[in-house]
Amino acid sequence: MPSEAEVYAHTPRSSVNRLKQRATYDHEKIHSIIDSAPVLHVSFNPTSFEDDPFPTILPMLGCTGSFTSSGAQEKSAVVIYLHGHSASRFMKIPSQPPSYLEEVTLPGIPVCVAATHIDGLVLAYTPFNHSCNYRSAVVHGYASAVEEPEEKTYALQLITDNMLSERWDNSRVPPTEAEMKSTGVIRVDIVSASAKIRAYGVGNGQPDLDNEQMRKGVWTGYGEPVSAEENLVGTVPTYIGDWIKGHNDEAEKYSKQITSLKAPKKS
Amino acid sequence: MPSEAEVYAHTPRSSVNRLKQRATYDHEKIHSIIDSAPVLHVSFNPTSFEDDPFPTILPMLGCTGSFTSSGAQEKSAVVIYLHGHSASRFMKIPSQPPSYLEEVTLPGIPVCVAATHIDGLVLAYTPFNHSCNYRSAVVHGYASAVEEPEEKTYALQLITDNMLSERWDNSRVPPTEAEMKSTGVIRVDIVSASAKIRAYGVGNGQPDLDNEQMRKGVWTGYGEPVSAEENLVGTVPTYIGDWIKGHNDEAEKYSKQITSLKAPKKS
Repeated sequence: MPSEAEVYAHTPRSSVNRLKQRATYDHEKIHSIIDSAPVLHVSFNPTSFEDDPFPTILPMLGCTGSFTSSGAQEKSAVVIYLHGHSASRFMKIPSQPPSYLEEVTLPGIPVCVAATHIDGLVLAYTPFNHSCNYRSAVVHGYASAVEEPEEKTYALQLITDNMLSERWDNSRVPPTEAEMKSTGVIRVDIVSASAKIRAYGVGNGQPDLDNEQMRKGVWTGYGEPVSAEENLVGTVPTYIGDWIKGHNDEAEKYSKQITSLKAPKKS
Repeated sequence: MPSEAEVYAHTPRSSVNRLKQRATYDHEKIHSIIDSAPVLHVSFNPTSFEDDPFPTILPMLGCTGSFTSSGAQEKSAVVIYLHGHSASRFMKIPSQPPSYLEEVTLPGIPVCVAATHIDGLVLAYTPFNHSCNYRSAVVHGYASAVEEPEEKTYALQLITDNMLSERWDNSRVPPTEAEMKSTGVIRVDIVSASAKIRAYGVGNGQPDLDNEQMRKGVWTGYGEPVSAEENLVGTVPTYIGDWIKGHNDEAEKYSKQITSLKAPKKS
């Protein structure tokens, strides 16, 4: 059973090259960024580069898990489970290895899974020191379809409860045979993983901090808005307040509007 | 000048195969999903697959734009501008075409850019009809570095003001030479693009809607929470209310905690 104190190996692929103080390879931190992300982005290549040189990204729902089959003694390694309709493009891919890798035998389709949280804008004096507070995890691994019913059910309950805890038991279960058939589960066996986290105040350059005249004109702080310690502007400027109000109003209006719309009829 | 009423061509790569009623190829809708996303996910391949078969995803900031140089009569096509530190992995890639494409001449590095908004959970009776309201855009195109100073400044102002409108003019500008040098801008020339939008109420199956006994036990609706029209449960169950409160409390606590932390010293 993998210990949660473990870390992922540093590889040339996964090593963070810039701002290394923001990097972590810690299992627990990386899994927590993935499991709390509202959506995961999954990248994979076409089966052939001949007509199509582009990797593709699909937004998908999923989370980390560690399945132990009823007979087994050992818990398996932590993997990422993704779900989607059985007929979707990605669910079909694992049975068609990409032609550019035909000559090697791989344990699955090479994919990248990214989970990103933007925790706030960080507004410094100059745009060049602007930033975001964020938590970002990037995982590389081999994707394959989960066919075994026990593991598939485990993964679907896990993904449902990761969206909203206790939801599985509080909804109409067990699934019908048709429901199980129409839903595909992909398991990503993790090969390497890293995360980058920025979680602190505004970073201004010393020349800007020494420029008191400029500092009386430029508001610095966070998008909430929380004023930075070094701020010399007394009140939150209108353009910042308006932007936040606009964003919130628009989101609320959109949310109200769409939840009142009828879903297409299901059989 | 491209008209905003234009649509992107349907290609095998960009065509939405499942739930086609959710698909759009409309320029304006796709650009608006990209420009309002708090973060973009960008996927590209390693320069060689020999030691590394994985595509990579990086979260980046950027937006769409259409630059017209001072002498030009025509506005150029809409592209995606991305920014990052000049020393970052992705900023270096455009000068090293991937070896798997060595035999063809391409106008840049093949990338995929994804923008995703999760607008709410949609809780149906059975987990298999659960969904999210979302707006998702996926763009394929060729990435190259922007070297021309006029276009680079245009892009940086655009990205800054896309994060927070009017911020460029309200901050300490113009940038110093060192600031311009340390920041890289990538332009993605769009080859194909599509978006998928789910924006409506709960979709339940008829057998579930006919099952009144079950319907008195299972709460359906939206994560805000907004009760679905067909709901037979009187009040929002505790596990749903707790989940929302937990999420909000945690986000607020984290946000307060991190903005009080000091940034590392900048020169």
